[in-house]
Amino acid sequence: MIPEGFLGSAVSANIRYKDRLDLGLIYSKRPAIASACFTRNSIKAAPVKVGIERFSNDYLKGKDTLIQAILVNSGNANACTGQEGVEKTLNILNALSGVLGLSEKRLLMCSTGVIGEQIDEKKFIKRLDELKDNLSSQGVMDVSQAILTTDTKNKIAEKTFEIGGHKARIFGMAKGAGMIAPNMGVAHATMLAFIMTDCAVCSGRFLNAVLSDVCNKTFNAITVDGDTSTNDTVVLMANGMGGAGQIGKGTREEAIFRDALYEVCDRLSYQIVSDGEGATKTVRINVRDAYSYEEARAMAEAIANSPLVKTALFGEDPNWGRIVAAAGKTGASMREESLCIKLDEVLLVKNGLYTGREQEAKEVMKKKAFSITLSLGLGDGRFSMLTTDLTKEYISINADYRS
Amino acid sequence: MIPEGFLGSAVSANIRYKDRLDLGLIYSKRPAIASACFTRNSIKAAPVKVGIERFSNDYLKGKDTLIQAILVNSGNANACTGQEGVEKTLNILNALSGVLGLSEKRLLMCSTGVIGEQIDEKKFIKRLDELKDNLSSQGVMDVSQAILTTDTKNKIAEKTFEIGGHKARIFGMAKGAGMIAPNMGVAHATMLAFIMTDCAVCSGRFLNAVLSDVCNKTFNAITVDGDTSTNDTVVLMANGMGGAGQIGKGTREEAIFRDALYEVCDRLSYQIVSDGEGATKTVRINVRDAYSYEEARAMAEAIANSPLVKTALFGEDPNWGRIVAAAGKTGASMREESLCIKLDEVLLVKNGLYTGREQEAKEVMKKKAFSITLSLGLGDGRFSMLTTDLTKEYISINADYRS
Repeated sequence: MIPEGFLGSAVSANIRYKDRLDLGLIYSKRPAIASACFTRNSIKAAPVKVGIERFSNDYLKGKDTLIQAILVNSGNANACTGQEGVEKTLNILNALSGVLGLSEKRLLMCSTGVIGEQIDEKKFIKRLDELKDNLSSQGVMDVSQAILTTDTKNKIAEKTFEIGGHKARIFGMAKGAGMIAPNMGVAHATMLAFIMTDCAVCSGRFLNAVLSDVCNKTFNAITVDGDTSTNDTVVLMANGMGGAGQIGKGTREEAIFRDALYEVCDRLSYQIVSDGEGATKTVRINVRDAYSYEEARAMAEAIANSPLVKTALFGEDPNWGRIVAAAGKTGASMREESLCIKLDEVLLVKNGLYTGREQEAKEVMKKKAFSITLSLGLGDGRFSMLTTDLTKEYISINADYRS
Repeated sequence: MIPEGFLGSAVSANIRYKDRLDLGLIYSKRPAIASACFTRNSIKAAPVKVGIERFSNDYLKGKDTLIQAILVNSGNANACTGQEGVEKTLNILNALSGVLGLSEKRLLMCSTGVIGEQIDEKKFIKRLDELKDNLSSQGVMDVSQAILTTDTKNKIAEKTFEIGGHKARIFGMAKGAGMIAPNMGVAHATMLAFIMTDCAVCSGRFLNAVLSDVCNKTFNAITVDGDTSTNDTVVLMANGMGGAGQIGKGTREEAIFRDALYEVCDRLSYQIVSDGEGATKTVRINVRDAYSYEEARAMAEAIANSPLVKTALFGEDPNWGRIVAAAGKTGASMREESLCIKLDEVLLVKNGLYTGREQEAKEVMKKKAFSITLSLGLGDGRFSMLTTDLTKEYISINADYRS
């Protein structure tokens, strides 16, 4: 169920491929307090630069950023396109401002697709009237189709909950299947996620804090190929049209809102990894009892991105030596004598030594989804990541298709 | 040509596979001043632990480590085998000590193969007499076969040069095709390399300094899959039997020796990458004019290990956006306006913008070996790495075979 006041529409603008939805518009009937996380890649796409400038500008002035519409395209990332790419983004937003009768400050643009090619702004501008005319609540679902690239399906998640006796809603959509290892910071994928809520929140700073925290545990904790995109962006819009009271910092309502947002982002993250390019498995890598959070995170990332681990996942081979080697290459503190590895509940390595339970471990690995838990027995550092297997199909998709 | 005084022999000990050479012995007629670089992986194989202890012990006492024989096996890495693995290594070395009539301190063992399985020490010990009896200069070539795992061919390199009018020789052998991203430090692969020279050197510390420097520019600057092994080891033995005078620190002879060693290690590194699992291309990634050496190295490693770059290499697709994104994910200093990318001599990106020379770039990528040069235009940091493409064959090798 789409939150109150949010509309969407999408068209086929032939940006790269013909006859598929590739240009979408998300619109809120009222200006929404917004927060965004952008890629931390040193190279940022033109629309990311424009978005960061917009949020930073308000932030420096101590103002909330109010967003009312987001234009999003697939097929061209508008990254590594220099000043020309930025100018074209601004031209498109300027035209959208005219069509919607809104200040440019209320508008954002997001792009995903091939890097290094200039966009044809005319293809965008001539469809803006149609996008506006077709806006509808159900059209939001069309936008979730228009943002896809190598994805095999659209990704949506929703949550309805109560704030002070009033119904409130969060709806999110996301895209992403390759170049997936988001590392985003507030006012800093090509993962794109747009999250809409009809909750009322006290401020943009509050929204930043909640989104940043949730993002670190969800979108920033997934990987398909370890390649962080120049375009990754999550935008959260809260338009307050649901009728519930305002959510303030440190309140019980904050916890309810945060949990609901976490659930939506977690489900979107899971869908991204499940639909990872060529993936046949979705695997949660848990690192527990590491010396520190930082070491736990480094080991989880190393395991989740190791080609040898990922091919063993594809081969359904409980080759735990590869897991240990991947964790160890980080240089993190490890002690063989206290190291344990579980595949789901099957203890494969106990205190550094093989338990011989290979047959049971193989059964676990036949599943489409399972977990690998590495316990270090050293401290209380812990981190979990979602990853995929590495398959021949991944090679086909990325060696044969320019994504 | 095998350096003066070095002998070798190899047998089929059926460690993992039947009827292939899998156990070898390298022997020097005189004790050789030795230096070794061992993996920096937090988890180290049993023979690596034993080797490090040997070198560290001498180092702390200010003594040179003298090595006269190295026993090496493929098929089992003896890693993650706990105290039992260490004891078995020591038992084998003890038996070898008896057979050769040498102090255990003069012996090293190196292993490569599957992680996490206990070795059967009897298979080793019962073949030691035969290994000793068959020692010959030509037998060194058999050892270069016995150390192979997923390698498709043996890897050797030699160099003859002059030290003060006398002929001197360096001969090296190496193995490694997967789990290749060596990161080794002195007294710290599964890359294995054994380098023999009949040069006389002034001390073990001198040899450490030269090997460490050369290793950082050669073996530590290659990658197949970014996975650093628990067993990587390079051993350099200098037995002084060539008849040339002793090489001292800071002398002209040091430069000659260092250059010769660099050439041998560079050629072995190249052979490892060329024979990388499933690889069809050998590509040198050059990062130039980065802000610092550290940032240059981080970017070169990120590009060299990026699945999206490596599949584009396989696809012969000059998809430079993936190169930029991989470099940028390190967070290194980058400025689009001064960024240039060349494929061999074809300038594909100039000052951040695409030059359109795609057809020429495609021609370069059809070659089996070429270079990608990323110039940042920021400082004088530079680093080069050798990498491979990522192919369906890599997936087959690692999903179907327990390596």
